[in-house]
Amino acid sequence: MRLRHKPWASEKISENPQYVVAQPEEKKGKWDKEFGNDNPIHIEVGTGKGQFVTEMARANPDVNYIGIELYESVIVTALDRLIEAELPNVKLLNVDARNLTDFFASGEVGRVYLNFSDPWPKNRHEKRRLTYENFLKLYEDILIKGGEIHFKTDNQGLFEYSLKSFSWYGLHLKFLSLDLHNSDFEGNIMTEYEEKFSAKGQRIYRVEAQYQNQ
Amino acid sequence: MRLRHKPWASEKISENPQYVVAQPEEKKGKWDKEFGNDNPIHIEVGTGKGQFVTEMARANPDVNYIGIELYESVIVTALDRLIEAELPNVKLLNVDARNLTDFFASGEVGRVYLNFSDPWPKNRHEKRRLTYENFLKLYEDILIKGGEIHFKTDNQGLFEYSLKSFSWYGLHLKFLSLDLHNSDFEGNIMTEYEEKFSAKGQRIYRVEAQYQNQ
Repeated sequence: MRLRHKPWASEKISENPQYVVAQPEEKKGKWDKEFGNDNPIHIEVGTGKGQFVTEMARANPDVNYIGIELYESVIVTALDRLIEAELPNVKLLNVDARNLTDFFASGEVGRVYLNFSDPWPKNRHEKRRLTYENFLKLYEDILIKGGEIHFKTDNQGLFEYSLKSFSWYGLHLKFLSLDLHNSDFEGNIMTEYEEKFSAKGQRIYRVEAQYQNQ
Repeated sequence: MRLRHKPWASEKISENPQYVVAQPEEKKGKWDKEFGNDNPIHIEVGTGKGQFVTEMARANPDVNYIGIELYESVIVTALDRLIEAELPNVKLLNVDARNLTDFFASGEVGRVYLNFSDPWPKNRHEKRRLTYENFLKLYEDILIKGGEIHFKTDNQGLFEYSLKSFSWYGLHLKFLSLDLHNSDFEGNIMTEYEEKFSAKGQRIYRVEAQYQNQ
């Protein structure tokens, strides 16, 4: 997505620590205290403008959601949405996903969502793709045993790459649709991007992949 | 495909044992003698009218091909093609793929091709799909260590199912295209069915899956 410079974003983020958590490394292993309950914690890596994580939180009050987004100018839109929604079970982290293990203890996360991640189509950028093996290792380090990645994208090349990457990592595919919006999958919560591109007739691909470390 | 009753098929097949091998169980472990060389043996399970296996044999003289087809009324068309082509490196078996281990010794087969296999879309017919786990076990029993399945289909449901089945079996995906005819894959040999359906704009899916028993 196009990034706009928003000089006021930094200030707004720091004024709302109840939504964009300040010093998240201090919450590592203590997210149950932060949410005030021991419900499962599902994270979305690359949460963008936050529609998915907010609507998931609204639909599933017994799950705690954390949206992770690197860019201040983007997460500030997600913040607006959270202020409006006033939900107790969703928070944001303005951090780099490569440092996930700084913010979550082993087994602290119940599920990882990846939605319309940057495809990084050039081979030399493979390591930046959120389904590259180093990221799969990071997710494994913070997920419960037998944890799952739920991934959707409209990018054919990224989906092909990701299925290969999952197979080499030994993940088992539990659900797979090569045309989500014409499948029998129920309860799909759309991202902003998904609404826009599926309206143009673009196919959406979706997979659920499970770690075999039970 | 639609099956026509061809009362003369049986006779024609038995008259051409150099192409449709008679008593194939007697060749088990001795296919190198049958072909007169020790080139790798690649089999196509469900060879239909034989265009794929014939053209692969023509293009790759250093590989021996065996097309396996259950239906006499279909294999007789493949036989006509072989008689016409006069190639030394391709043969047919008129047998049931469930009995593969009766015809091939462990490690005797270098690769398995599955092209546009019957999708058997009903859940209760899952066991008939050629990518069901029992078939993956059969292929493993006759393949070399680290052997591969090369699979293509236009059937979305069968492809989704097969990728899941491969992942649960522990196969690694080496190549994956969700739109073969618009990919950079070179040297694709088309089946009769593929020519017909891709001309209608139907997507062709293709994957190469490798056993991890090296």
